[in-house]
Amino acid sequence: MVSSLRESTSPPSGFRDFLPFEARRRAQLSSLISSVYESFGFLPIDSPALENLEVLLSSGGGDENEKLIFKVLKRGEKFKSARETAKDENDFSDLGLRFDLTVPLSRMVAEYRSQIKFPWKVYHTANVWRAERAQKGRFREFTQCDVDIIGSKSMAAELEVIQAVAFAVQKAGAENFELRINDRRLLVSLAQHFGFSGEKVDRFSIILDKKDKIKAAEIHAELEEALGSKLSSEIDTLIDGSLDLNQVQKIDPAVTDELRNLILRLQELELPLSKVTFDPSLARGLSYYTGSVFELRHPSAGYSLGGGGRYDRLIGRFSKEEIPACGFSIGFDRLLLLLSEKEANSRPRLFIPVFDESLRTSMVQIARNLRDWGFDVDVFSDASKLKAQFKYASDLKYRWVLIVGDEEWKTKEFKLKDFESGKELVVREDQLKTHLTNLLLKAE
Amino acid sequence: MVSSLRESTSPPSGFRDFLPFEARRRAQLSSLISSVYESFGFLPIDSPALENLEVLLSSGGGDENEKLIFKVLKRGEKFKSARETAKDENDFSDLGLRFDLTVPLSRMVAEYRSQIKFPWKVYHTANVWRAERAQKGRFREFTQCDVDIIGSKSMAAELEVIQAVAFAVQKAGAENFELRINDRRLLVSLAQHFGFSGEKVDRFSIILDKKDKIKAAEIHAELEEALGSKLSSEIDTLIDGSLDLNQVQKIDPAVTDELRNLILRLQELELPLSKVTFDPSLARGLSYYTGSVFELRHPSAGYSLGGGGRYDRLIGRFSKEEIPACGFSIGFDRLLLLLSEKEANSRPRLFIPVFDESLRTSMVQIARNLRDWGFDVDVFSDASKLKAQFKYASDLKYRWVLIVGDEEWKTKEFKLKDFESGKELVVREDQLKTHLTNLLLKAE
Repeated sequence: MVSSLRESTSPPSGFRDFLPFEARRRAQLSSLISSVYESFGFLPIDSPALENLEVLLSSGGGDENEKLIFKVLKRGEKFKSARETAKDENDFSDLGLRFDLTVPLSRMVAEYRSQIKFPWKVYHTANVWRAERAQKGRFREFTQCDVDIIGSKSMAAELEVIQAVAFAVQKAGAENFELRINDRRLLVSLAQHFGFSGEKVDRFSIILDKKDKIKAAEIHAELEEALGSKLSSEIDTLIDGSLDLNQVQKIDPAVTDELRNLILRLQELELPLSKVTFDPSLARGLSYYTGSVFELRHPSAGYSLGGGGRYDRLIGRFSKEEIPACGFSIGFDRLLLLLSEKEANSRPRLFIPVFDESLRTSMVQIARNLRDWGFDVDVFSDASKLKAQFKYASDLKYRWVLIVGDEEWKTKEFKLKDFESGKELVVREDQLKTHLTNLLLKAE
Repeated sequence: MVSSLRESTSPPSGFRDFLPFEARRRAQLSSLISSVYESFGFLPIDSPALENLEVLLSSGGGDENEKLIFKVLKRGEKFKSARETAKDENDFSDLGLRFDLTVPLSRMVAEYRSQIKFPWKVYHTANVWRAERAQKGRFREFTQCDVDIIGSKSMAAELEVIQAVAFAVQKAGAENFELRINDRRLLVSLAQHFGFSGEKVDRFSIILDKKDKIKAAEIHAELEEALGSKLSSEIDTLIDGSLDLNQVQKIDPAVTDELRNLILRLQELELPLSKVTFDPSLARGLSYYTGSVFELRHPSAGYSLGGGGRYDRLIGRFSKEEIPACGFSIGFDRLLLLLSEKEANSRPRLFIPVFDESLRTSMVQIARNLRDWGFDVDVFSDASKLKAQFKYASDLKYRWVLIVGDEEWKTKEFKLKDFESGKELVVREDQLKTHLTNLLLKAE
């Protein structure tokens, strides 16, 4: 056995531990979002944390996210041979941690094509990993709650995923969410309008997408650098988002009409969103989008709380067939930051101290009955003095303590102590269920 | 954009995708186990998928699992400098995927020591990764449901985690689980009794632990090879588990008494287990165990369905303080294999076709009401012909379809079709709630 190494016990930089209160809040929010998604007829799927590296690298080429993949080292003989012949990082690695849930979903659609009935409505709540530079509020492991419709070219798909997300975040307990909408094709037309062509069009989107992180003037400068020449000042109305639908109508009438129609239809649905607005500067970094793109915002947060769009060609990269697709992803960790830290609801909890080890089996039997009646029951799990046991109950904020000492066990008259009021109630064992149900289940 | 690469679309070898039916079964089992753990007063925690590599490597030294760590390649400058100076694999890597949940938990206890009230009762359901050779039924990514009590030296901790697991697997719907128990200290005494000493004691445990995978004769041979000399035939009663408590009493009376007492106390509790037995050959591979070890078995499976034990010195490897600990982990994936594939319970589901795109907004409004009343509602999300919509409903096994065409929308007399009986019911819009509640919520 190795002697104590005393290495750092904090999680790796950019990663987080969750203690009980936070872990429970997360579990509850996640199950609430899943239940809203299911209420719209979406069904869950799941995919591995690790994907073959070539799958992750095939998602587009221009993606910033590909640069952020955590790559897994080859093992054994493969590592040895890589060491001798490798040209770059990728030769040392065969697997990578997924950086989003859309690429794995697209791979799955290609793989299980013959079993899937379209439109395929699925949701996927899971962690993704990105090797971003660690900084406040930006994590290297975070949770996404994706909802997708595969196989529908219709705008009905956009309406459905946006609805599901709007109701999910409303149920989560926050209000005044805004939805910003754009279309990737319009962005291409705008890029061309400003003189970008070929590969520079992707650069145009990537630079615009930085607007949450850097200043407008810097974006202007980066765009000019990418273009290689001066830009007209009209570009600033794009960068600040003031360019409106009427102005872009001339640049790309067909896509503008579609966008206008989508916004109109969304407004008709009277979703729990404070605004639905056109944002010509909205790019959504991932290069796999092919049509509508959208983003969830909140006035009290300077960043997007989720985003999505149409990606009609991503599945085609994994399959002979092009299959239209549209999805929306909630940034779970960012949404949690918005929500008030209210005490999580749970079943009523009771604590049972153990007066003497010889009584433990009896206490366990009592606890088992209480659990069957719908309570969570903690029987003290160490052989400590009573004083320590009551301190534990108070530290853990247990309100109700069931006291069964030697005397109580003999007379079958238990004591129920309310730590909040300090009152004590004597309850006969055969009336425990009625009493507790009245007191705890009906009152709380 | 990259042209279609057509790489393999299967998940990496040893990894799995989960389509809706399976994904939902998994989510439901996981939430059921969590709810049983909570009913015993355990609270959830969570830790990152990636740990600093030195944390993972500090767990014991002799561990087979350390050889199975998926290591993450260093990035950027660190990769470049590793390439020049690296001596072995570990120099190329700074992070690794956790191979169990006990090492991260122990690190967390050390890190948050000052905030924790002992006994700390926590549970942790999450994936772990091991680079095992891929083979049938053995996966490289699998789920563990751990339940632990930190800070209790008392046997009460063993009783509590074993109880929680016994009730969790019973609630999951399988019966006749057996619990096998041993003690690491007894195993050390047995090793010494058979002539193993020093580092060979760990080898002794590791070899015994292979008994599910290789034959008794091979274990005998491996033990002799490790010892470097012939073994008495008494070793075979250890390998086949026939050595009983009375026989080991002479070898280590103190530990045998403790074990006997633990088994007795467990029997008193009348847990939903068919047997609780002493198994002198039970080693549980992980070298961090220091006392009791136990394993959950089922007559219809030739492998363990979960295991655990006492690890009183693991936390001390991360902290100046030694803190006693005891835990039990359910092998979620193996448990699922045992359970019958019954249809998952869920809220009643309805399908609403869209007769014409001009009616979509109205259908969405109807669906929204139905959701408020407790139904999951799928509004068809593509612009397809009605025939295709009904085929979709039947493929997805929707029993109830709410039909609102132009005519129904005008008259407010909707049709509710039962795909099982083929019957159609006319329901006035204002009576929809009452009708559906009676038909779907009360009947199902």
